[in-house]
Amino acid sequence: MGGTGSRFNDREKEDSEMIKDVHAFHSLLLIAAMVMPAIPIASAAEKGAAGHEWSYEGEHGPAHWGDVKTDYAMCKTGKNQSPIDITGAVKADLPTIQFAYKTGPLRMMNNGHSIQVNYPEGSFITVDGKLYQLVQFHFHHPSEEKIKGKSFDMVAHLVHKNAEGYLAVVAVLMKKGRANAFLKTLWEHLPKEEGKGKVLANVPIDPSELLPAQRGYYTYTGSLTTPPCTEGVTWLVLKTPVELSGAQIDRFAHFYKHNARPVQPLGGRVVSESR
Amino acid sequence: MGGTGSRFNDREKEDSEMIKDVHAFHSLLLIAAMVMPAIPIASAAEKGAAGHEWSYEGEHGPAHWGDVKTDYAMCKTGKNQSPIDITGAVKADLPTIQFAYKTGPLRMMNNGHSIQVNYPEGSFITVDGKLYQLVQFHFHHPSEEKIKGKSFDMVAHLVHKNAEGYLAVVAVLMKKGRANAFLKTLWEHLPKEEGKGKVLANVPIDPSELLPAQRGYYTYTGSLTTPPCTEGVTWLVLKTPVELSGAQIDRFAHFYKHNARPVQPLGGRVVSESR
Repeated sequence: MGGTGSRFNDREKEDSEMIKDVHAFHSLLLIAAMVMPAIPIASAAEKGAAGHEWSYEGEHGPAHWGDVKTDYAMCKTGKNQSPIDITGAVKADLPTIQFAYKTGPLRMMNNGHSIQVNYPEGSFITVDGKLYQLVQFHFHHPSEEKIKGKSFDMVAHLVHKNAEGYLAVVAVLMKKGRANAFLKTLWEHLPKEEGKGKVLANVPIDPSELLPAQRGYYTYTGSLTTPPCTEGVTWLVLKTPVELSGAQIDRFAHFYKHNARPVQPLGGRVVSESR
Repeated sequence: MGGTGSRFNDREKEDSEMIKDVHAFHSLLLIAAMVMPAIPIASAAEKGAAGHEWSYEGEHGPAHWGDVKTDYAMCKTGKNQSPIDITGAVKADLPTIQFAYKTGPLRMMNNGHSIQVNYPEGSFITVDGKLYQLVQFHFHHPSEEKIKGKSFDMVAHLVHKNAEGYLAVVAVLMKKGRANAFLKTLWEHLPKEEGKGKVLANVPIDPSELLPAQRGYYTYTGSLTTPPCTEGVTWLVLKTPVELSGAQIDRFAHFYKHNARPVQPLGGRVVSESR
């Protein structure tokens, strides 16, 4: 993984010529929206447009999301909300998550709530025979999920959708340590302005480089962690964190100091844990 | 259990003098409502009053519940609905369900959708250290849940609530076989008229007599199976069915020929199964 950053660096000059504005980015999203059915996910486009309807603090902060508008009611009334503090997980014979990610062009957006990378069709996970396509991934600082009361420095959420419109999100916890080569590429291209996106056709990325070697996981049924807090989301939280450097954390924190929803009640939900 | 029915039969004459009308029944429900917090459950009282707002067939049948009124929207929009067809369960180290039911007076109601027995305070289950109080139980014909595509002749749903208002429902599947002594007592007192209840202070019942000897179970996160289809319900479906006679099935069917919601999409939910 160490060489990935420099390989990409060599291409930087060409890349700068390839940067498209947010309109081109939106037309790609439109295509993505047409080929993908059902469940509303808060896409970068929606988030961009509605960027200041909700926030992570103050009068439109997490405690008030459910009152911002009726579409967000689930944030307040939902009984299966995310994130959660993962405690008391039961060991179960869970199926392996099979990752089949392909290299694709970097499409980044600063949507006003996070840095999000929208991903083209063709990358999948399979869980228990069910196929989910990678749609986008984004980051939270600190991690939204806690493990036995402890949060991590950051988390990446890789959002997948199946043919019936159900979402499965793979969470990759991130803790301070060695620099992360995958993030090095991403962070070099962070769109500084909210609502702005970049399509970097000549910066290929492979999201599998973001995954830890060990793929054991916790799973439970939850929701989107941002409005509209839609439920019916399968969470797959990888147990093994990956590392990123303090400087990489600081660089993200410069954009988003705290973009994490507080943990929500588990209620009667069971969290299962692979062996 | 064979002797239970005749012991109760001896008391029938006294019992008939103890039958109170539905008003007395309602005041008991009112007390029950005052001591129990939070989550809306469709109580017998509500069901009685709203008995014909929804049904199991026709224009107010299951496919239309979500449109009957806005309070029932979850029946249509929910992503974690019940019942389900239980297939592909993963074996897990699930905690034992500890039953601590006490004998109590028989309080029955024909609520227009089922025969329901409301239960006084003091009977509990404990799952993984969480205490849930038995509130009521009722019956569906045929069973609402399916196991690997197969439904059962009937099912009893024992509805429990914890201090935070979360519900846990124990489902006891019932198949045709020998007469069931516990149901013999209940069926002798079936309130024939919809909206009518009986409080039979001198007919003690012990709901633990309804349980199979083997308490292995399936568990998943779902909803009420009747409007308002509230989610956040922990389902505990006992794997081992109990028996009841063909005549007992017929007697219930005389009142409720088909009071079972069709199975709902599992989506990405994981069903866990005890070993």
